[in-house]
Amino acid sequence: MKINAERIAQFLEGKVEGNGNAEVGSFGKIEEAREGQLAFFANPKYEEFLYKTKASVVLLNDNYELKQPVTATLIRVPDAYIAFAKLLQIYEELMKSQLTGIQQPSYIDESAKLGEEVFVGAFTYVGANAVIGNNVKLYPGVYVGNDVKIDDNTILHPGVKIYFGCQIGKNVTIHAGTVIGGDGFGFAPQDDGSYKKVPQIGNVVIEDNVEIGSNATIDRATVGSTIIHSGTKLDNLIQIAHNVEIGCNTVIAAQAGVSGSTKIGKNAMIGGQVGIVGHLQIADGAKINAQSGVSKSIKEKNTAVTGSPAYDYTSALRSQALTRNLPQIEKRLAELEKLVQQLMQEKINF
Amino acid sequence: MKINAERIAQFLEGKVEGNGNAEVGSFGKIEEAREGQLAFFANPKYEEFLYKTKASVVLLNDNYELKQPVTATLIRVPDAYIAFAKLLQIYEELMKSQLTGIQQPSYIDESAKLGEEVFVGAFTYVGANAVIGNNVKLYPGVYVGNDVKIDDNTILHPGVKIYFGCQIGKNVTIHAGTVIGGDGFGFAPQDDGSYKKVPQIGNVVIEDNVEIGSNATIDRATVGSTIIHSGTKLDNLIQIAHNVEIGCNTVIAAQAGVSGSTKIGKNAMIGGQVGIVGHLQIADGAKINAQSGVSKSIKEKNTAVTGSPAYDYTSALRSQALTRNLPQIEKRLAELEKLVQQLMQEKINF
Amino acid sequence: MKINAERIAQFLEGKVEGNGNAEVGSFGKIEEAREGQLAFFANPKYEEFLYKTKASVVLLNDNYELKQPVTATLIRVPDAYIAFAKLLQIYEELMKSQLTGIQQPSYIDESAKLGEEVFVGAFTYVGANAVIGNNVKLYPGVYVGNDVKIDDNTILHPGVKIYFGCQIGKNVTIHAGTVIGGDGFGFAPQDDGSYKKVPQIGNVVIEDNVEIGSNATIDRATVGSTIIHSGTKLDNLIQIAHNVEIGCNTVIAAQAGVSGSTKIGKNAMIGGQVGIVGHLQIADGAKINAQSGVSKSIKEKNTAVTGSPAYDYTSALRSQALTRNLPQIEKRLAELEKLVQQLMQEKINF
Repeated sequence: MKINAERIAQFLEGKVEGNGNAEVGSFGKIEEAREGQLAFFANPKYEEFLYKTKASVVLLNDNYELKQPVTATLIRVPDAYIAFAKLLQIYEELMKSQLTGIQQPSYIDESAKLGEEVFVGAFTYVGANAVIGNNVKLYPGVYVGNDVKIDDNTILHPGVKIYFGCQIGKNVTIHAGTVIGGDGFGFAPQDDGSYKKVPQIGNVVIEDNVEIGSNATIDRATVGSTIIHSGTKLDNLIQIAHNVEIGCNTVIAAQAGVSGSTKIGKNAMIGGQVGIVGHLQIADGAKINAQSGVSKSIKEKNTAVTGSPAYDYTSALRSQALTRNLPQIEKRLAELEKLVQQLMQEKINF
Repeated sequence: MKINAERIAQFLEGKVEGNGNAEVGSFGKIEEAREGQLAFFANPKYEEFLYKTKASVVLLNDNYELKQPVTATLIRVPDAYIAFAKLLQIYEELMKSQLTGIQQPSYIDESAKLGEEVFVGAFTYVGANAVIGNNVKLYPGVYVGNDVKIDDNTILHPGVKIYFGCQIGKNVTIHAGTVIGGDGFGFAPQDDGSYKKVPQIGNVVIEDNVEIGSNATIDRATVGSTIIHSGTKLDNLIQIAHNVEIGCNTVIAAQAGVSGSTKIGKNAMIGGQVGIVGHLQIADGAKINAQSGVSKSIKEKNTAVTGSPAYDYTSALRSQALTRNLPQIEKRLAELEKLVQQLMQEKINF
Repeated sequence: MKINAERIAQFLEGKVEGNGNAEVGSFGKIEEAREGQLAFFANPKYEEFLYKTKASVVLLNDNYELKQPVTATLIRVPDAYIAFAKLLQIYEELMKSQLTGIQQPSYIDESAKLGEEVFVGAFTYVGANAVIGNNVKLYPGVYVGNDVKIDDNTILHPGVKIYFGCQIGKNVTIHAGTVIGGDGFGFAPQDDGSYKKVPQIGNVVIEDNVEIGSNATIDRATVGSTIIHSGTKLDNLIQIAHNVEIGCNTVIAAQAGVSGSTKIGKNAMIGGQVGIVGHLQIADGAKINAQSGVSKSIKEKNTAVTGSPAYDYTSALRSQALTRNLPQIEKRLAELEKLVQQLMQEKINF
């Protein structure tokens, strides 16, 4: 799919400078773009690349004055970055709208209900009594278990697996390989040292506008629901244990893990590789630094913590700095010991 | 599938109070349950919910005295929690026994041998010479490589992949997306800075009654076997490297990783996000706190460690507390330096 | 597939001692090998097992003098370990060359181009305009998106997913369940506390001779490419964020994560569970210890760091040791305080 500069300019209500027939088929960064790509220039730091770029078309701010001739076709717009983002979004929506129909072979149980404009990729499985909303896109190799509900406009990328009885909201995106609704990790120790499984028969509820990265795992509740509230964004390889609840618009970076029954508030920001112990309460707006280990509830809103075990950000940074200086602290202590020893000695001699 | 209170009471040898025809089709927590669900009440902390619950049927201890009228149908039993767990287990077994037959399309090599009462989901692949025991359930999208053996009553959830030649015992459960038998991470550095792959031609042996979470990875041995002994439970996103051996009834929480050739004893408990260096020995019953980094063997049984690098639990907690107090320690030191300076000064003046 | 000692000896130009008709079908470690397996003996530490092994054939150094009779057939070679490695490699290549043809059902878009000697496993999906080189092996259940290019001799293990537009070089191996090209984690905060997705329309480029473990995730760039340069080896469950670039022949151990836009040099060695913050530069040859948290660029080549936050290896080890001794340091300080108190007191009394 190629499009020329003239048509892009019309769409953006911009003005072409150069060859209006120059065609592009994909996007690139101004410093790396190849022929046939569209780039934008907005940040002065990248000015040199404007004059060297191999991009066929470049979006440029109206008020920028050229200092040398440029080989790319230019499109002048009020804000090049916003115009670029607008094109990206249109491109994504176009791609999504083209995904429709049912590829073969796929497996759709006869009791499942599918909405309109649904895409079911090859090798995708839709179990008994599953309900799939309008405009849902199930990429190839997706598994939708029995009694699962997936609401309108949701996208499941290749190889996503949803265990039986889980519920996925509207406008949700889940990336490849993620598993929703596996059994929570619950085993009762027996007298002989072995463990007996505690049945995990709750489910997972994912509300609207949530996005989840690749190869993450969200376990079903023992009883009741593990809940991800609307607008929350989870990165790749994240572990969410049984009966966890995460509030609206919280962001969690890759490889973080939340243990069983912990409740996280809304608008929290949790860094990569953070671990949170089970049965805690994390207040709204909490900020947890990467690699922190949270072992106590965070009760006050908007608290920032770091470290493992984690405590308040400013104190922890001061302690970390002093830890780095421990060799000097120890040296100061040793010198002081010598002096005091000397004073004691002199006192005795005295 | 719905069942009424009268039949549940018969099964549990309990006594109905209220409408014996009330029907339930799933389970809920007393504080969240909806109409058509069964809940239990045992913990006094949740007493208020007994009187507000929307559950249609509630299991209740014989000796509990009602303080108000209740809308749900009650079933009186000696221990409500145990009765509830019993129902859960029956429900799970029922669900499992209903999974049988071979869905199409699936791929079963003609040289593979399948036992009785086996379930093979759509898009599941069974390679050459694979041997699948009785009552094994292979969910949709499972990959079973050539020469793999899977013993009776084992369940592989959607998208589990077992590389060639691996062996899985009886009553094993492996959750979705987990990979068993990928190549160990072995590369020999060459003079030019590049790496040459060391072929990994051992396998993985998983013994009876093991459960493994979702999206975990257990690598095949270079030569010989990576072994998970019977009764051990591994959570989601765990990494087990080549030639590791884990003893019976050990429990490892999510996102922990064990490096190559390390041997872990039996009845150990290993927290989430723990990392264990290669070629170590971890004694039976070791307790390793979440996020610890174990860089030395743990020789004494039942030792508890924490921290990164990890050392004995009590000392490490004391050091962690003092690390938090480092700003005060530094302040005490600075004050002391001033005093001693003053004493030295006075001595000189004196 | 079985082969006898005589033929192995011919191939290795070695000399048989014992029964030349002894057959083997797989490999084992000398201390664990079963009948029908081939093992080697080179490390004197394992000498006792040479006389106890159940292996049918054992490779042995020319210059080793037997101290007792051995039941296995021996093959004498100049270097038993090298001979063993040679057999392993041949075995692997043989297995690979046998993988060819297109299993059914699979889904290959009619616009896709496939090279010669390609293997496409059952349930594998090859999207529109994908280009698959010669001798590429796509195991069962692989997903290759639209416009993906995969160069010669590359192996994708079961369930690997490559999103649209990504490029994979020659001789690359990617293990089961790994996801290449999922969306980068980019969301712009809005005034109402919600997040708006930043479209991620770059791709991932993986150069020649790269190996990637199981269930890893490498995100596509926002614009441009996330790049893994040639010869680099990534272990299981690794997270590589959008726009990261990793130099040639760098090795990263399991469960490590690299945040967005960070550039890592060549010949670096990065331990398991390491986390690296975004937008950093990591110099060539950097050595980052397991579980470290790297929050600042590493500018000097071959620097070794450890800790979270990470700093130079030697100082960090000293600080870690002193942290362990904090209880003693605190005790010394307290004693010194007492002495100084006493001196002050005496001065006053004096």
